[in-house]
Amino acid sequence: MSFTAYILDVLTDSIYPARITVENGIFTEVTPIIVNEKTRMDVRGLVIPGLIDSHIHIESSMITPAQFAKIAVRHGTTSVICDPHEIANVLGIEGIEAMIENAKQVPFNFYFCAPSCVPATKFETSGATIDSSDIEFLLQKDEIVALGEMMNYPGVINGDEEVLRKLELARQYNKPIDGHAPLLSCEDLDKYLEQYIVTDHECSNVIEAFEKKMKGMKIMVRDGSSAMDMESLFDIDDAFSRVEDQGSLGIIFRDIFEKRIFSPLFDFIVSDDKHPNDLIEGHLNKSIKKATELGIDILKAINMVTVNPAYHYHLNCGAIVKGAKADYVIVDSIHDFNILATYVGGECVFDGENVLFDVPEIEAKNSINASKKSASDFDIYYEGDECEVNVIECSDGDLLTKKTTAKLAVREGIVQPDIFQDVLKIAVVERYGGNNVANAFIKGFGLKKGAIASSVAHDSHNIIVVGYNSEMMAQAVNRVIEDKGGIAVVSEDFNESLALPIAGLMSNEDAYDVAEQLSVLHQMTSALDCQLVSPFMTMAFMALLVIPSIKLSDKGLFDGDSFEFMDVIVN
Amino acid sequence: MSFTAYILDVLTDSIYPARITVENGIFTEVTPIIVNEKTRMDVRGLVIPGLIDSHIHIESSMITPAQFAKIAVRHGTTSVICDPHEIANVLGIEGIEAMIENAKQVPFNFYFCAPSCVPATKFETSGATIDSSDIEFLLQKDEIVALGEMMNYPGVINGDEEVLRKLELARQYNKPIDGHAPLLSCEDLDKYLEQYIVTDHECSNVIEAFEKKMKGMKIMVRDGSSAMDMESLFDIDDAFSRVEDQGSLGIIFRDIFEKRIFSPLFDFIVSDDKHPNDLIEGHLNKSIKKATELGIDILKAINMVTVNPAYHYHLNCGAIVKGAKADYVIVDSIHDFNILATYVGGECVFDGENVLFDVPEIEAKNSINASKKSASDFDIYYEGDECEVNVIECSDGDLLTKKTTAKLAVREGIVQPDIFQDVLKIAVVERYGGNNVANAFIKGFGLKKGAIASSVAHDSHNIIVVGYNSEMMAQAVNRVIEDKGGIAVVSEDFNESLALPIAGLMSNEDAYDVAEQLSVLHQMTSALDCQLVSPFMTMAFMALLVIPSIKLSDKGLFDGDSFEFMDVIVN
Repeated sequence: MSFTAYILDVLTDSIYPARITVENGIFTEVTPIIVNEKTRMDVRGLVIPGLIDSHIHIESSMITPAQFAKIAVRHGTTSVICDPHEIANVLGIEGIEAMIENAKQVPFNFYFCAPSCVPATKFETSGATIDSSDIEFLLQKDEIVALGEMMNYPGVINGDEEVLRKLELARQYNKPIDGHAPLLSCEDLDKYLEQYIVTDHECSNVIEAFEKKMKGMKIMVRDGSSAMDMESLFDIDDAFSRVEDQGSLGIIFRDIFEKRIFSPLFDFIVSDDKHPNDLIEGHLNKSIKKATELGIDILKAINMVTVNPAYHYHLNCGAIVKGAKADYVIVDSIHDFNILATYVGGECVFDGENVLFDVPEIEAKNSINASKKSASDFDIYYEGDECEVNVIECSDGDLLTKKTTAKLAVREGIVQPDIFQDVLKIAVVERYGGNNVANAFIKGFGLKKGAIASSVAHDSHNIIVVGYNSEMMAQAVNRVIEDKGGIAVVSEDFNESLALPIAGLMSNEDAYDVAEQLSVLHQMTSALDCQLVSPFMTMAFMALLVIPSIKLSDKGLFDGDSFEFMDVIVN
Repeated sequence: MSFTAYILDVLTDSIYPARITVENGIFTEVTPIIVNEKTRMDVRGLVIPGLIDSHIHIESSMITPAQFAKIAVRHGTTSVICDPHEIANVLGIEGIEAMIENAKQVPFNFYFCAPSCVPATKFETSGATIDSSDIEFLLQKDEIVALGEMMNYPGVINGDEEVLRKLELARQYNKPIDGHAPLLSCEDLDKYLEQYIVTDHECSNVIEAFEKKMKGMKIMVRDGSSAMDMESLFDIDDAFSRVEDQGSLGIIFRDIFEKRIFSPLFDFIVSDDKHPNDLIEGHLNKSIKKATELGIDILKAINMVTVNPAYHYHLNCGAIVKGAKADYVIVDSIHDFNILATYVGGECVFDGENVLFDVPEIEAKNSINASKKSASDFDIYYEGDECEVNVIECSDGDLLTKKTTAKLAVREGIVQPDIFQDVLKIAVVERYGGNNVANAFIKGFGLKKGAIASSVAHDSHNIIVVGYNSEMMAQAVNRVIEDKGGIAVVSEDFNESLALPIAGLMSNEDAYDVAEQLSVLHQMTSALDCQLVSPFMTMAFMALLVIPSIKLSDKGLFDGDSFEFMDVIVN
């Protein structure tokens, strides 16, 4: 197939008319041509390379890789580097292989990472462990292009043998190592970098990005559903307003960069997590537009999701160049950036209206091994009329929590939640056969009735539940168990759910259906007086022990600062 | 050792004050600091990364690697990626190993390439052949970081088995492949690139650079002694003045880049060849200044000789960053760029006045295996009074030659040169034991008497001689043989030489001494009425068959266009 079109050449940062030939999925000709009055352009609009998201966890979209591809191509995405560490926590290697197998059946480039930190900590029950021998098994696969984000930075810094072995294996197999080092700085960052961990997608301020870049890292600007760092990184005014709080490095940064564009600091734009309701609205196409609105040069922004990741991960795509995979997108113009069509390996996969491929399902085996719960499973006992408890204080969509305390009434030996103080009950129900239930208190949800539960609870994905009382919590958890995983909202008046039967994380339905169901659940949660815009996402992070300061695992309340368990009842 | 200084951080493109600690040759701390009235900077000037020349043939400097290091550190160079293909043509693996061994003994980073094209063609006698098994032997060495410039592009394009095997080995050992593809374009360039040949240092015009960059190559801008492409690549006015002659791609280029800086096209600045008289004047420091005078951003220019080559060749240097080799240079300012001191692995190797290391010698074994010549060896016979001959027409310092013809008188059966037409005699004397002598005629030198001879004659380095008559030629060649290699100028009045006893290419003396001796020879050559500014360099390329259009090997006159031998006498 041959055609003429204006192309965006990311190798020379230029736009020119060219004749393009595609054979067997590969660009076999890209020849600049002269335009005169007789020249007919076969393509209206501009041909750009297919967009590459260099760090994403597909499972957060609650749909299968194939369904992800189906929605992503509408937005001009043709490749993702995905770290299947959510499913790995539930199903281990078998889960990763199911993702890879499903991904292979659609015309879209899925490159996988070997998840480096499964389980995230030893303080929780996960469904599987990925040890260094599993890592070696995975790194040998062609589909695996990198070692996934090394979240266990304490392990790296303290020289944990198994962690170092995984890092050593990645170097041995010549596959890059992705980092995850939120706010890591100074000597600790230095130690982390000694292991040749190159990327970081956790920068939440420019000073952090500056220090990491200065020390040799490549910086991924995150513009996802859970974490949106782009504004604080790209918005010069916003960035400088934060500089004063950043200590001496902040002052130095201000002196260096005042009145200068600091885009040389950034290498990639990634989404990390993209929830179904966001994903149906846009993906990297939206991030590019946002970046340019924040003052980043459009060509620079496009490079961050095309040629930069392709070079870094050694992918044969990311540019309209002879010999590369013919992954390309037609946009109306570089400024408006509306996606008119998407091609993967030369095949039209999105024609502007429809996605032109079929989507295979992943067989949903029940991964929830938990007995039905009764209200009493969620009671916390105390002898006395009143007691002081440690409380998790959360805020909307924030992975970080604060430690607080509350005085609660005790009735018939059971500590009572208090909706007037907004101190509700939270529990993590182990789902891997052991039937642990850990109970605690949480502030910030604002529920005045009912309960919400979910089998999406990072990273071990036990069932997490927040509720007004024990009875509602039991009902919500049991609904999740009946659904073989998912998200449930229950109250006296309704009992609704989104089933996520694949590992309790994903549905075989498409992004629009899942987003629609999720939006119904959001409305119901609002009807329970929940104050959060993203209650399920916020709840899902309450079990993520590696982000401070206070979290809950199936084994108990956890102090994320001292990295040890803590008591619910204050002595 | 710890000190405070302003540093140029090539990773963030910024300059800031920092505290730097060096231990065991490595930067172990690079911490930005706040400057106030009390801050004392230990270093006056600016600390920049040591400069890296990513493509050079040390032998062209006529000095040993150790002597090269001694002069290069004065100019702020701390690393070179060198292709020892000159010595390889003479002495093979043994010669390469002698270079590596000598290089190891000085505090300077020599990274070597495995020479891919030894000999350059099968139409000449060389001292050695580097076949694919030799290449494999070399690629296994840590000192070898790349496969050297693949000059045999016809071999690549036509799928020569041995050539493809060498390329395959480089990929197998995960070492980058350097290119050499002067004016290669369209389908031929495409075929060349299918072999993952990534760099090119032969671009002589922006259109050529544009096409190569567009097709995925990394472009080395050459600013050397033999070839100076920087003006035609970096000088926008100059570049655009050439665009019209470049066909449709030129017109397209003009439309794209008019009024735009096209520095995104370029990745590295290299010297390729640096003759002793140029080398004593400057190296990359001079190229950086020249680049900025041509309008290239200084930070971009510095990146081309620091972080860009370090990334490409996987070198642990090229930036002032913790964990990297402490190779750095103190300059007075980024604009004046005078070198105040140079450090390699944390060790001061140049203090602004003196070079602080000793230079080992390479043992000079005689590599010239040729019997003494007599005048009759240089005679060309013809029966008749006059004859028409094919003539090599050369111009100063140009690798390209033109075919021309001349009518010459014949006396006593011997064809006579003609100084009035400037048609002189040229010969290549085989030096590897076979005692071939090939004779021909050349136009352009302008000699009115005497002869000049040299054992530097690319790439096989037989003895080449240009002279007024056969007697002088024999004397000049014999002087080179007596010197065990070198350059000689003889006439009725004098007989002077520069001895290059190491492979007939290099001296153990230092760059200043060699430059001084060479300059005496240049003056003498001028006294012979030679019109060329660089007579020895020009002569050295007359045996380089791979550059068209007409050259001379020890086996005879060669048509570089049809790639076959041709007759001296026109039938």
